Amino acid sequence: MTKLNVALIGHQFMGSAHSNAWRQVGAFYDLPLEPHLAVVCGRNRETTEAAANRLGWAEASTSWEEVIARPDIDVVDICTPGDSHAEIAIAAAAAGKTVFCEKPLANSVEESRAMLAAAEKAGVLHMLCHNYRRAPAVALAKRMIDAGEIGEIRHYRGAYLQDWIVDPNFPRVWRLEKSKAGSGALGDIASHSLDLARYLVGEISEVCGMLETFIRERPLEDGSGMAPVDVDDAALAMLRFDCGAIGSVEGSRFCPGRKNYNRFEINGSQGSLVFDLERMNELEVYREEGANGGFRTVLATDPSHPYVEAWWPPGHILGYEHTFTHTVLDLIHAIDREELPSPNFGDGVRNQCVLDEIEKSHESRGWRQVEA
Amino acid sequence: MTKLNVALIGHQFMGSAHSNAWRQVGAFYDLPLEPHLAVVCGRNRETTEAAANRLGWAEASTSWEEVIARPDIDVVDICTPGDSHAEIAIAAAAAGKTVFCEKPLANSVEESRAMLAAAEKAGVLHMLCHNYRRAPAVALAKRMIDAGEIGEIRHYRGAYLQDWIVDPNFPRVWRLEKSKAGSGALGDIASHSLDLARYLVGEISEVCGMLETFIRERPLEDGSGMAPVDVDDAALAMLRFDCGAIGSVEGSRFCPGRKNYNRFEINGSQGSLVFDLERMNELEVYREEGANGGFRTVLATDPSHPYVEAWWPPGHILGYEHTFTHTVLDLIHAIDREELPSPNFGDGVRNQCVLDEIEKSHESRGWRQVEA
Amino acid sequence: MTKLNVALIGHQFMGSAHSNAWRQVGAFYDLPLEPHLAVVCGRNRETTEAAANRLGWAEASTSWEEVIARPDIDVVDICTPGDSHAEIAIAAAAAGKTVFCEKPLANSVEESRAMLAAAEKAGVLHMLCHNYRRAPAVALAKRMIDAGEIGEIRHYRGAYLQDWIVDPNFPRVWRLEKSKAGSGALGDIASHSLDLARYLVGEISEVCGMLETFIRERPLEDGSGMAPVDVDDAALAMLRFDCGAIGSVEGSRFCPGRKNYNRFEINGSQGSLVFDLERMNELEVYREEGANGGFRTVLATDPSHPYVEAWWPPGHILGYEHTFTHTVLDLIHAIDREELPSPNFGDGVRNQCVLDEIEKSHESRGWRQVEA
Amino acid sequence: MTKLNVALIGHQFMGSAHSNAWRQVGAFYDLPLEPHLAVVCGRNRETTEAAANRLGWAEASTSWEEVIARPDIDVVDICTPGDSHAEIAIAAAAAGKTVFCEKPLANSVEESRAMLAAAEKAGVLHMLCHNYRRAPAVALAKRMIDAGEIGEIRHYRGAYLQDWIVDPNFPRVWRLEKSKAGSGALGDIASHSLDLARYLVGEISEVCGMLETFIRERPLEDGSGMAPVDVDDAALAMLRFDCGAIGSVEGSRFCPGRKNYNRFEINGSQGSLVFDLERMNELEVYREEGANGGFRTVLATDPSHPYVEAWWPPGHILGYEHTFTHTVLDLIHAIDREELPSPNFGDGVRNQCVLDEIEKSHESRGWRQVEA
Repeated sequence: MTKLNVALIGHQFMGSAHSNAWRQVGAFYDLPLEPHLAVVCGRNRETTEAAANRLGWAEASTSWEEVIARPDIDVVDICTPGDSHAEIAIAAAAAGKTVFCEKPLANSVEESRAMLAAAEKAGVLHMLCHNYRRAPAVALAKRMIDAGEIGEIRHYRGAYLQDWIVDPNFPRVWRLEKSKAGSGALGDIASHSLDLARYLVGEISEVCGMLETFIRERPLEDGSGMAPVDVDDAALAMLRFDCGAIGSVEGSRFCPGRKNYNRFEINGSQGSLVFDLERMNELEVYREEGANGGFRTVLATDPSHPYVEAWWPPGHILGYEHTFTHTVLDLIHAIDREELPSPNFGDGVRNQCVLDEIEKSHESRGWRQVEA
Repeated sequence: MTKLNVALIGHQFMGSAHSNAWRQVGAFYDLPLEPHLAVVCGRNRETTEAAANRLGWAEASTSWEEVIARPDIDVVDICTPGDSHAEIAIAAAAAGKTVFCEKPLANSVEESRAMLAAAEKAGVLHMLCHNYRRAPAVALAKRMIDAGEIGEIRHYRGAYLQDWIVDPNFPRVWRLEKSKAGSGALGDIASHSLDLARYLVGEISEVCGMLETFIRERPLEDGSGMAPVDVDDAALAMLRFDCGAIGSVEGSRFCPGRKNYNRFEINGSQGSLVFDLERMNELEVYREEGANGGFRTVLATDPSHPYVEAWWPPGHILGYEHTFTHTVLDLIHAIDREELPSPNFGDGVRNQCVLDEIEKSHESRGWRQVEA
Repeated sequence: MTKLNVALIGHQFMGSAHSNAWRQVGAFYDLPLEPHLAVVCGRNRETTEAAANRLGWAEASTSWEEVIARPDIDVVDICTPGDSHAEIAIAAAAAGKTVFCEKPLANSVEESRAMLAAAEKAGVLHMLCHNYRRAPAVALAKRMIDAGEIGEIRHYRGAYLQDWIVDPNFPRVWRLEKSKAGSGALGDIASHSLDLARYLVGEISEVCGMLETFIRERPLEDGSGMAPVDVDDAALAMLRFDCGAIGSVEGSRFCPGRKNYNRFEINGSQGSLVFDLERMNELEVYREEGANGGFRTVLATDPSHPYVEAWWPPGHILGYEHTFTHTVLDLIHAIDREELPSPNFGDGVRNQCVLDEIEKSHESRGWRQVEA
Repeated sequence: MTKLNVALIGHQFMGSAHSNAWRQVGAFYDLPLEPHLAVVCGRNRETTEAAANRLGWAEASTSWEEVIARPDIDVVDICTPGDSHAEIAIAAAAAGKTVFCEKPLANSVEESRAMLAAAEKAGVLHMLCHNYRRAPAVALAKRMIDAGEIGEIRHYRGAYLQDWIVDPNFPRVWRLEKSKAGSGALGDIASHSLDLARYLVGEISEVCGMLETFIRERPLEDGSGMAPVDVDDAALAMLRFDCGAIGSVEGSRFCPGRKNYNRFEINGSQGSLVFDLERMNELEVYREEGANGGFRTVLATDPSHPYVEAWWPPGHILGYEHTFTHTVLDLIHAIDREELPSPNFGDGVRNQCVLDEIEKSHESRGWRQVEA
């Protein structure tokens, strides 16, 4: 089987999740190409070598430029913080590599447009990693919507709630600095809800949003004093979709008890669907069936459900990390078929436009059109 | 025991619920005054007499003016559609009666202000019936918030979702006519979420809302053709509270499977509370308790919970109708103590102002201040 | 409308629940006979008069013998502790009254057989109050089973769990004395599970049971010392049904957090049903529907569901007490039609036989046949 | 790091799960020894080589005898059907290997005793794979029980329910043949509930069980006719524990909608715990906390929870397969420390004794002591 040489740039949380996906996909799925974990790249020699060893990469490098220049590398998988995505992706595309980029695509619309343009100009395949699209229950929701099982969609209600910075003494980490993170809950988690909205319901035409920072100053990590928080702790927006549906989306890090509550509810003319990432193997489904209808809990672990056939018998649940395994699976098939995978940099641009208009809407205190 | 003579105006759904409350309250609670179901008033002689008989009223009348003029009547309980509330309430106040009025207080801010002014001028007690405040689980939420158990409130997330007009062939009933109903989902159900927001979190300072009508024409009830729908099928708003919390509120009649889903989630700095009317005896409570914390289902049926002592042993649930029984209970005590009950016409005015600004915000496509 | 004069014997918890049912049934249902709360009977003059006043009975009496002798009384409703049921019911039957008796029918098989014989000899109607049969969700389960919607039944899994005597310092109340209560959790709560088993699945042919008393001595209520507990704290049995199904039933007062957890799960060849009294308006239903099937939560509040038409719109839940209202409703109709209602004293005998064999099985440490 | 050479015997469902564990454990945990997937063994050359390739084993073999004879092999991991466990394990022990055996240890008490004796005689380490003990939520339950958080245990209520053979046309596979499978639901799934009972509550002193076969004849897989089913479709038993607790355990393959419903509820004097494998990242916890207590859903994904630190941030759930990863993790540490891991062959013997007495109890129709 032809090898597919992969280079991973970045080896923190997302790098670990991507490594696992590359390492595991072949043990469960029949693949047209054999992924080879060729090289992992990081800033620090020692930690990168340790990561290579732990995560299963053949080599370690501290220069992404050198890695991209290697002729044997087929895929560049970018797991660095968002502010470096554009530079690496544009260089990788120019080098003719397939580019696989963790979300968000970039920290600005401009950067994301440049990335898309670079990939298109180079004629390379590009994919954006929005892994939750490939939770089996979410993919099942998509399948049901596409089959018309809930009819015409009227409402999307998305929320991604967490509680990790409720404590005002939690330090001012990089995710709370605008210059590094771009935004707060908006770009980090509400962005997932928005991507799922676009995936499941369609393009968003208008937004009206608000941002809030509850704790405006936090201790520095090194204990040397306080520093301002200049990103949003919570973001909320109302939405209008091209298809006529309306909706809302929210991200907050100030919801005690919500650990990783990425929930959506979709109401159509014939039924409703509800998903919550904390129970990611389940899809709540309501179909119009008369008085004895009701929300049913579909355990998305049947071989007939998306991506499940390769795994365990019904009722044996999958974990978070396999949303990445399924993403990598589809990327490998797309490379084999020389087809543009989905979501790709075009989705990244579109997502960034929506986030951008929400921020502008917060400033202008009113609705904003999202450019097509 | 001194009798409290009650006159009920209107005997449909709400009239039936109020009758039950007046009839039942004394069988479970020790009362300072004995309510007497003196007279029920309706338009049609025959149906009103049947209602009197069925609902336990001593007399039937077809003239609310005559009823209000009777010197023996102490309380006028108004359960007619919203467009007649003002006229009846103003007359009842002028006649020196305690006025108990079903929500919404009126169909406009002006009417509601006039009602409050009339009651204050007459020096009579007045109460607005927002019954869900007195579900034991909701009153427990209030008690916990007031005791600081969830800390400073950051988020209110309210939704009242139903599905009774999803079918486009459902007829254009009066609730879908603006001239009669004032508004659609906004005034009918989102108004409950807003009242709970004010009750539990505090005054709302700003709103930004949107309205949508999915089915703009429906068959007339008499089969004689089609007619326009000129009220909202769904309403959605973002909120800012005086206390610094932010939030959202939604009402929709287009959510398949949601029969009477009046849900709120409140996140504070120390915990979270979740309520759903379809499981109205339960309150989900999260308190910061370290890694072994979690949302707990508190069955609000303990004698120590608000209103519960009079009822059954723990775990024996209460039904919808007793939210009215508890409201009437508190009204009777307020009359006995000659104290203004809560919520009252002042709340009705305030609620109406919020609804009004949401409608205006929909038109202006931006945020609106709510006048104090 | 013809009056139906009712006499209530006993006015504690059950007497209060029965009173409410008699008082309320006519306000919601069209009745062929008009129930009149003629007289309530208790031991103590003062408390009985207070009960009459509070619960809505026209008269109070301290002699059940006198009450039964009154020619105007049509129905004798027995809500006394189980050890007096037989004497009162046999006398009431001999006096030609319809006899309505709270469960358990009696404290022994012999007593219950004598009661059935007396009622049959007198030719009077008799009904046993097993109220949970008439929760709408339970009656819906029965309707679905009878319609074959879950196919041939294989499993019944019943449990009635509470936690009110977990504390070893909770006093030795009468319910913990065998001479008064007959048995402990077995007769008090497991008996409900067994009655539902017989109602929903059919007759029980064999049982194998065990009893346990965790706290064998408790403080006397008057503080004068300790006294033995000679009833079971928990009872558990395996079952075989005539129809070929197998099952289990359990009652325990030692399950922290279970307030009134009367749960059953029934598995048939085509589907499954689950009910929990703490959420008594819901029935969980599973039907074989392929991979996208799942347990659905049917909110048994639709007008088409048993008993619901008279109440509120869909999604407005009913409380515990209306299980009695529905029982009284059916009794009134049975009296009007001169038909034996169900469950009746025959069921009481049968239930008692099952309980009796479970106790004997505990002694003999093996299976016991239940006599037909 | 010292290598630990592992040989896997059998590569079907369990072999795949064990392979994954060996392959993954080092990518997440710091290990004292480095597991090397040396050789996988199967009957068929072609499928075994394919398995080796897919599952990550360095070599394939068709002779377990040869594999066991290899001096480089440190651990023999047995994933064959139960009827071959004894022969392989005894040989592996005699060869001085650490023996890791999938449950059930054997198909009879005699075999399991022989295996334990062989391992003890050889002085090798031995471990039984009862993977559900190492779901983090189950290990958390154990930790809480050991810390006395629910007090003295009174009740264990275990059930493992599935629905894969509800259809009478489902063929008579090997799991439905006594000669191959030993027993049906009893040994396959009720055995998991029993192992969890022993793990969490303690030793079982007495049992009283029943077995049932609903469909006694099924089509042969090759379509050549019908064949008898001579194992149980469902098994049910009452239990008494050494500690004074009582309980029940059930296994059934005839419960529509239950895909992998391995549930337990434990009631202690101070609280209760509930687990369901279909939501294996959650533990329901009730602690005595007064009227505002309730069952809380603890998401067992916090770094402080057992085994979780190596994985993802809070709220990112784990899948079924990592119950094996955690088992292998503990085995590796036990080997490094030269300590007997738990559960081991002694537990296998004890589990088999319990299963055996349940079968005998079914025959004798009464209680049976479980030999210590």
